[in-house]
Amino acid sequence: MTDLNVKDYMDALGKSARQASRHIANADSNAKNQALTFIAHAILREKAALIEANGKDLAAAKENGLESALLDRLTLTEKTVGSMAQGLIQIAGLADPIGQMNDFKYMPSGIQVGQMRVPLGVIGIIYEARPNVTADAAGLCIKSGNAVILRGGSEAIHCNQALAKLVHEGLEKAGLPKEVVQVVETTDRTAVGELITMKDYVDVIVPRGGKGLIERISNDARIPVIKHLDGNCHVYVDQDADLDKALAIVENSKTQRLGTCNTAESLLIDSVIAQDVLPQIAARLLGKGVEIRGCAETCKIIKEAKPATDEDYYTEYLDSIISCKVVDGIDAAIAHINEHSSQHTESIVTENYTIARQFLRQVDSSSVMVNASTRFADGFEYGLGAEIGISTDKLHARGPVGLNGLTSLKYIVFGDGHIRT
Amino acid sequence: MTDLNVKDYMDALGKSARQASRHIANADSNAKNQALTFIAHAILREKAALIEANGKDLAAAKENGLESALLDRLTLTEKTVGSMAQGLIQIAGLADPIGQMNDFKYMPSGIQVGQMRVPLGVIGIIYEARPNVTADAAGLCIKSGNAVILRGGSEAIHCNQALAKLVHEGLEKAGLPKEVVQVVETTDRTAVGELITMKDYVDVIVPRGGKGLIERISNDARIPVIKHLDGNCHVYVDQDADLDKALAIVENSKTQRLGTCNTAESLLIDSVIAQDVLPQIAARLLGKGVEIRGCAETCKIIKEAKPATDEDYYTEYLDSIISCKVVDGIDAAIAHINEHSSQHTESIVTENYTIARQFLRQVDSSSVMVNASTRFADGFEYGLGAEIGISTDKLHARGPVGLNGLTSLKYIVFGDGHIRT
Repeated sequence: MTDLNVKDYMDALGKSARQASRHIANADSNAKNQALTFIAHAILREKAALIEANGKDLAAAKENGLESALLDRLTLTEKTVGSMAQGLIQIAGLADPIGQMNDFKYMPSGIQVGQMRVPLGVIGIIYEARPNVTADAAGLCIKSGNAVILRGGSEAIHCNQALAKLVHEGLEKAGLPKEVVQVVETTDRTAVGELITMKDYVDVIVPRGGKGLIERISNDARIPVIKHLDGNCHVYVDQDADLDKALAIVENSKTQRLGTCNTAESLLIDSVIAQDVLPQIAARLLGKGVEIRGCAETCKIIKEAKPATDEDYYTEYLDSIISCKVVDGIDAAIAHINEHSSQHTESIVTENYTIARQFLRQVDSSSVMVNASTRFADGFEYGLGAEIGISTDKLHARGPVGLNGLTSLKYIVFGDGHIRT
Repeated sequence: MTDLNVKDYMDALGKSARQASRHIANADSNAKNQALTFIAHAILREKAALIEANGKDLAAAKENGLESALLDRLTLTEKTVGSMAQGLIQIAGLADPIGQMNDFKYMPSGIQVGQMRVPLGVIGIIYEARPNVTADAAGLCIKSGNAVILRGGSEAIHCNQALAKLVHEGLEKAGLPKEVVQVVETTDRTAVGELITMKDYVDVIVPRGGKGLIERISNDARIPVIKHLDGNCHVYVDQDADLDKALAIVENSKTQRLGTCNTAESLLIDSVIAQDVLPQIAARLLGKGVEIRGCAETCKIIKEAKPATDEDYYTEYLDSIISCKVVDGIDAAIAHINEHSSQHTESIVTENYTIARQFLRQVDSSSVMVNASTRFADGFEYGLGAEIGISTDKLHARGPVGLNGLTSLKYIVFGDGHIRT
């Protein structure tokens, strides 16, 4: 396609999406759940075909020298196809957020005012290798009454197109227009530029991928973006921490999985207990092969620690490394966190009621925890049923974004002929 | 100031605002309420001085040939100064939204998850003539724990600076940093350009003013904008409408105040009753001096009606004019509204349960009403206590935006040493 053709193509996609969004916004819960179930069944039925399409993508990716981490995320197996279908069935089981009416109150004028939950309209989702995002995102958008335009990475194009066919089959079997879910069929990069600027046709953009992708999209978009940036998460061990809890939480937050955004990247410890407690925590981390990069105080106490630069305290390692700093109490801990963290998730280990309350109130992050592993910051763990990302923004949605994050509230007013005087 | 100086000046303002926002975010309710009360008292005490400063602005405005509507909005009187102070006292009386914790639930893992309401951070407000916005916006931001940078119109600069002094006096008397509320002191237009692009220092922009101002700002901003665009509001009179209610609601929606965004600009009527009912409604409107611009059907029934162009149905008149269309039932009414309205406020007059439910669900506007005047779409009437604007966006806040619209929710997790397995 030429650039002009891409523009026309994306425009047509946008127009169909807007039209389909009106339909799905008013679809009943049953039709939406049926569509999700039909799609899940079609995915299971076509397991072999999907893996075959994925094979084509993998072959091309290897030829193009795609790095192994990406190859890994691109690969579909019997198991991952199964969990795609499973995910859709789970979404079908969640309560329908659309049309929920809440908080109706009578006002002094006599009118009764409340709110109704409604879809956002058309969502544009831009993502990299992982084909499971295609099924997940389609499922969340259908359930939340939105139309969606999916722009997956060019490296997954065969698999995504095969999935799109199954999604369309399910939608049509349930009596819903197939344009509710559209997969961009061109791998031309100008398509992304169109998608993130088509104000009339797209209401919100959700980029899923590396920090580079998300920053680029946020900068160029003319449509609101639900951003999921990095997770430079902290654990602060207070002087009133229970030692066993501290050991378990630091170890779990750092090492349970290294490459996730809710993994702890920095450890803070109260100077009052550093001499006694830091060696025990360090032993646990070192035992798991974690490199410690610490402040001068840390390096005095832990001989294996390497000196940390200021840059280290801003870094999301996604690796077997943790930065460490000895701080003088809760105020210093909070100040350090609010300065260095990416406002994703921070946890304090303490038995002290007042200190815990101060930490909860003053730490300015999307998840703030007491005596729990940062690894819990996740839509499933929070009971949202599914998540489309973890927002590090404050506007609209903050933290794990589930179905409600893809909706809005409109005001409803009931009167009996009421007029304003 | 040169452009370079303006950039430095705005940068300094931004830095101070960010710092002050950390302080006000954690201020206790009492300090915030005290500040609001002190400011209100200072405004009453300095009534004469404020009116004098406003006099300087008015003199300059007249010299510059400002149009009379703007002069009107610029003018401070004893009464408007009194209601500024009254507004602040009212805001002090509202419940503190910040730190509210809700919806804590135990999850299968054993952690307990809920949310805490937190400020957005730094708000940038850009507005035209009206000096009362200075007091209102300062009050709402203080109460919601945000710092604010206010950029009023150059035509109100003397009065705004006088108000800023009183706001600072009140903040400092309550032990809060005066940088919580900063008024941009230069009338240089490049200051606006800086304000709406200082991503590091400003979290959200709220423009208050005409459509032109808001569109310009939305296009150029690199920071999220809470938009308040036009109000092309509809009243639909269904075939099952109660005649008295229909007459009262159409008249009130159109004529109670002509220049507000929640004024009705378009009347739709079911073809089944048009012949009988439209003449009675038209008589009411014509009796109030309202010009009717109608479809061919309307013009047949109402000889005083002028023919409407398609453009009319998209127009927010803010004047003694209403567009009118005879439609074939509820589906046609909803389709017309979703195509032509500005998604602000629409009302149906009907006694029919099923028709009312369909209208509520399918009309895609920020306020949808049954048997009530569109004029009720307002923060005070909805019980929000105060409003910073009426959002015609879907993301973050939709409809009248009160204190909660200036806040966000962070997740709170309570554990007892819980780790993820």
